[in-house]
Amino acid sequence: MAADALAELAKRRGFFFGSNGAYGGTAGFYTFGPQGAALKRNVEDAWRDRFTIREGNREIEAPTVMPEPVFEASGHLEGFDDMLVECPECGESHRADHLVEAVTDIEDAEALPGEEVAELIADNDIACPACGTPLAGEPVEAFNLMFATDIGPGDAQPGYLRPETAQGIFVEFPRLKEYARGNLPFGITQIGPAYRNEISPRGGLLRLREFTQAELEQFIDPEEDEPPLDRVADVEVRLYPATEQEAADGDYLDTTVGEAVDEGVIGSPWVGYYLGVAQEWYERVGVDTDRFRFRQHLAGERAHYAADCWDAESEVDGDWIEIAGFAYRGDYDLSKHDEHGDDSFTVFKRYDEPKTVERAAVDPDMSVLGPEFGGDAAAVAEALEALAERDPDAFDAETVSVEIGDGDDAAVHEVDVDVANFAVEEVTENGEHITPHVVEPSFGVGRTVQTVLAHAYETDEVDGEERTYLSLEPEVAPQDAAVFPLVTNDDRLTDLADEVAADLRAAGLAVAYDDSGSIGRRYRRQDEVGTPFCVTVDRDGIEGDGPDTVTLRERDSAAQVRVLVADLADELTALREGEPFAAVADRYDAVDTDVETAGN
Amino acid sequence: MAADALAELAKRRGFFFGSNGAYGGTAGFYTFGPQGAALKRNVEDAWRDRFTIREGNREIEAPTVMPEPVFEASGHLEGFDDMLVECPECGESHRADHLVEAVTDIEDAEALPGEEVAELIADNDIACPACGTPLAGEPVEAFNLMFATDIGPGDAQPGYLRPETAQGIFVEFPRLKEYARGNLPFGITQIGPAYRNEISPRGGLLRLREFTQAELEQFIDPEEDEPPLDRVADVEVRLYPATEQEAADGDYLDTTVGEAVDEGVIGSPWVGYYLGVAQEWYERVGVDTDRFRFRQHLAGERAHYAADCWDAESEVDGDWIEIAGFAYRGDYDLSKHDEHGDDSFTVFKRYDEPKTVERAAVDPDMSVLGPEFGGDAAAVAEALEALAERDPDAFDAETVSVEIGDGDDAAVHEVDVDVANFAVEEVTENGEHITPHVVEPSFGVGRTVQTVLAHAYETDEVDGEERTYLSLEPEVAPQDAAVFPLVTNDDRLTDLADEVAADLRAAGLAVAYDDSGSIGRRYRRQDEVGTPFCVTVDRDGIEGDGPDTVTLRERDSAAQVRVLVADLADELTALREGEPFAAVADRYDAVDTDVETAGN
Repeated sequence: MAADALAELAKRRGFFFGSNGAYGGTAGFYTFGPQGAALKRNVEDAWRDRFTIREGNREIEAPTVMPEPVFEASGHLEGFDDMLVECPECGESHRADHLVEAVTDIEDAEALPGEEVAELIADNDIACPACGTPLAGEPVEAFNLMFATDIGPGDAQPGYLRPETAQGIFVEFPRLKEYARGNLPFGITQIGPAYRNEISPRGGLLRLREFTQAELEQFIDPEEDEPPLDRVADVEVRLYPATEQEAADGDYLDTTVGEAVDEGVIGSPWVGYYLGVAQEWYERVGVDTDRFRFRQHLAGERAHYAADCWDAESEVDGDWIEIAGFAYRGDYDLSKHDEHGDDSFTVFKRYDEPKTVERAAVDPDMSVLGPEFGGDAAAVAEALEALAERDPDAFDAETVSVEIGDGDDAAVHEVDVDVANFAVEEVTENGEHITPHVVEPSFGVGRTVQTVLAHAYETDEVDGEERTYLSLEPEVAPQDAAVFPLVTNDDRLTDLADEVAADLRAAGLAVAYDDSGSIGRRYRRQDEVGTPFCVTVDRDGIEGDGPDTVTLRERDSAAQVRVLVADLADELTALREGEPFAAVADRYDAVDTDVETAGN
Repeated sequence: MAADALAELAKRRGFFFGSNGAYGGTAGFYTFGPQGAALKRNVEDAWRDRFTIREGNREIEAPTVMPEPVFEASGHLEGFDDMLVECPECGESHRADHLVEAVTDIEDAEALPGEEVAELIADNDIACPACGTPLAGEPVEAFNLMFATDIGPGDAQPGYLRPETAQGIFVEFPRLKEYARGNLPFGITQIGPAYRNEISPRGGLLRLREFTQAELEQFIDPEEDEPPLDRVADVEVRLYPATEQEAADGDYLDTTVGEAVDEGVIGSPWVGYYLGVAQEWYERVGVDTDRFRFRQHLAGERAHYAADCWDAESEVDGDWIEIAGFAYRGDYDLSKHDEHGDDSFTVFKRYDEPKTVERAAVDPDMSVLGPEFGGDAAAVAEALEALAERDPDAFDAETVSVEIGDGDDAAVHEVDVDVANFAVEEVTENGEHITPHVVEPSFGVGRTVQTVLAHAYETDEVDGEERTYLSLEPEVAPQDAAVFPLVTNDDRLTDLADEVAADLRAAGLAVAYDDSGSIGRRYRRQDEVGTPFCVTVDRDGIEGDGPDTVTLRERDSAAQVRVLVADLADELTALREGEPFAAVADRYDAVDTDVETAGN
């Protein structure tokens, strides 16, 4: 399949196209036209059905603009960078690591320090791809990929467009745990825009500056919660583990989710569970499993806190592209917000039975501390409490020393143990506060759409004529069906076609209506946008004594059957929900497919 | 209904709450929790069904970040301002016009020049509402409400978060008209985030900095296209025309859409049509029509290009709030982009029959102009062409004078008419390029959600206990149903309840499952989030010889009937689609509602 042919079809038929063409275009931004928006929405609905509703998870919708402290906590402000080198001549910006990777056999230049990449640019005589000027000596800078803005007027607060939907979930964990009534595990999902101010956006939907994510944050108690692995244990997956990627003769591992988890190839059962769910879901929306794999991150690719990471990858135009990531993120996200934010990001985990524990405590005599330490007395008392908790043995001596204040104000004070009133008490604890761990399946919606289109693109010959069609699954196709009157100069046909279209729409089906051009041309138009079924109202169907009938044509086979108008909505609904066309065809009379060109 | 009670319920039960609470909150940003996100999505789906699918319109999805030239063309860069005054003491920013309106009887201070508002602040001794410092003498400035950002690194391009979804449609008109194959009328819709960097955000969902719009741009040929007004001619509407607002004893006009258009109260039939569609739609999603009206814009409120504008307004907590706007925008939007953009924003309108018209044209003799005007020769030739088109009579004299260049470079040249080769020719034209007019129904989704919740909020007494419930329409309620096992210590009940919940989900219903606390408390929880139907699995339903049954309880009446498990999915689907509960209840045995507290 030629990438250009699909891009041309996507633009011409209203799937997607570069935005703001009338203003010279804006790199990294795409607009979904009517067909593309419908396809994308159907993919999102299918995701919601599988990852939210069926899993008993819950979806939220958070703002896309978030204030700076959120990204201080998450680490994006500090570390969400790409390597930028600018051409001194034409001013064009480039990804420095990509330039180096293109001319060396380094595969992951991003992992190198900036100075080293600058040296590699000089050593390899790399020139500006835009104008040919040598880039030797130009600095390689860290460019933060968040879009910055100001919230409010006057003393504006710095804000950023979220680089991932996930932060809108993490930051509201104190609320969300209440909705779950404090019980783990629970999962929160979100589908919506995310933003990365890419240095060099790529074509199509692959590397955009604004894109749609569908993310699930599964919050678990790492010591207790197990996923329902048996539901997907038998799902077959093609894995590409890190060890195989690194081996000289590395190969795919075709196995099942259950085996891969049992044998430790997939480190976390939760990650394994969601790989299985994802495998089934990708098949459902029309990804070709022969052009699909799960690739494990190499050690260097993984964030330091991520225990195990896998990407879902699809093959598009000979390249493998990442379309989803599955990460065991530990307690990183919630710990960071707990540390930076002014709320609790833990849950209270109740013990099966209350526990009795020894706890060291002080009850400082303020009537002594007050006169002795003046304004510092309260701070000394606090320091004594902290010390008792941290190091009860310190109170074995006659005096203890505590430090109060910071920096220049720091002071060390000696306090009599008697004044501290140190004691070890037995207390009953009903539970403890734990920081949940996070398992995160994160899907790129646009990349899924791109994959689904690429894998659905087909050409063949019908009635001696070449045709292009999109073999989209009925669940995700932009239209469920198209309705045509065979000719427009017969009111009986156009009236019935209008009525059929209205009835199908009332039954909740997305229906196109087309009465322009030959019937063959109308079939081709629908084939090109992947409409799975076409309904043609013809004279044969309304003449004679019986009830009205129409022809129903299936896209891929171009086969036709004659169906009762009265049954049409039910049959199309069943087909949309996955009934094979062959089963429907068995119940009706086949139509000679010469009809396809009869209206020409 | 107390606004506070609803806000408290919205936060506690997961409808919506101020974002980033752990970081002190961010004014103007709200997060939709699980219940609110589901309600909002259902409202959006109902809008899509009515304004896109049923109307045969088409939906697109454009980016939220757009480059500066778009807003130069649209006028937002220049004119999308609010009046800002800053406190010299505490630095707090305020809407200057609002401060003035609060202490004078001026109703529309926004329409006054900034200096005049500054004078009114001084004359009325207005002080900072935050700290009490007098604001006299402080400048009133125009603050642009667009969030600004930079697209790309290096020579970054200025970009803005779109202040309305509409621009994403207008700017792609050259593509969109192709998808409509150049035929008017056609309508394009979009649902998505829009942004206004408000000076003083208000509470709740009313004035946010990030909000969701559902907009329809209906493109029409103003000379030919008529809406299908008969479909809504009999729809009853409560209008508040400008004349009534201005009259001392002004009153509402209760009429029908058909009459209001016939009598010219609504100026544009297209606006009238969409008011009718909107009236029906608001009723469908649960807006109380007694607390709803269409208010016409006063002359001063309207944009200069808008011929007629109406707002849909709902009463919430004693205030009338704007929840949608309906504007006849003429050719303003497309003309502006046609002028600024590098593409055609017109459509070619084919005549019924080709027309023969006279056209004046020149064919300048460059062999004369070249030597005479040198480098200006081409510009002179162009100016002659423009002049022939504009003012053919000018060529009646022996010489014509044309002006070329701008500003300092401007020059006037005299040219012999003979050299211009002026002639009037007869040409055949098949049609003409026209700029479509735009009718824009624009809905605030969050404000609709807020209205639907406020109008659904009810309290009453059940079994002697006060309860709060949301009387939401089944189509928009966050859950379609909840399923409970009556008790949890009987596997037969919990297993069947699990199975029932799974079956209902497989039938596409959004189902909550709850097994915690007394059955009465579980009903109350669902009442509070507006779940229209609760299904309880009890022993009566599984004992005995017959097939299994469950109780089905309706929210508002708290009435219960006993329904066959096998029928449940079909019955709930019918109820969701609008079948009255009474009709279902007629087919089954009523249950003594003492059951409601039996499990306590």
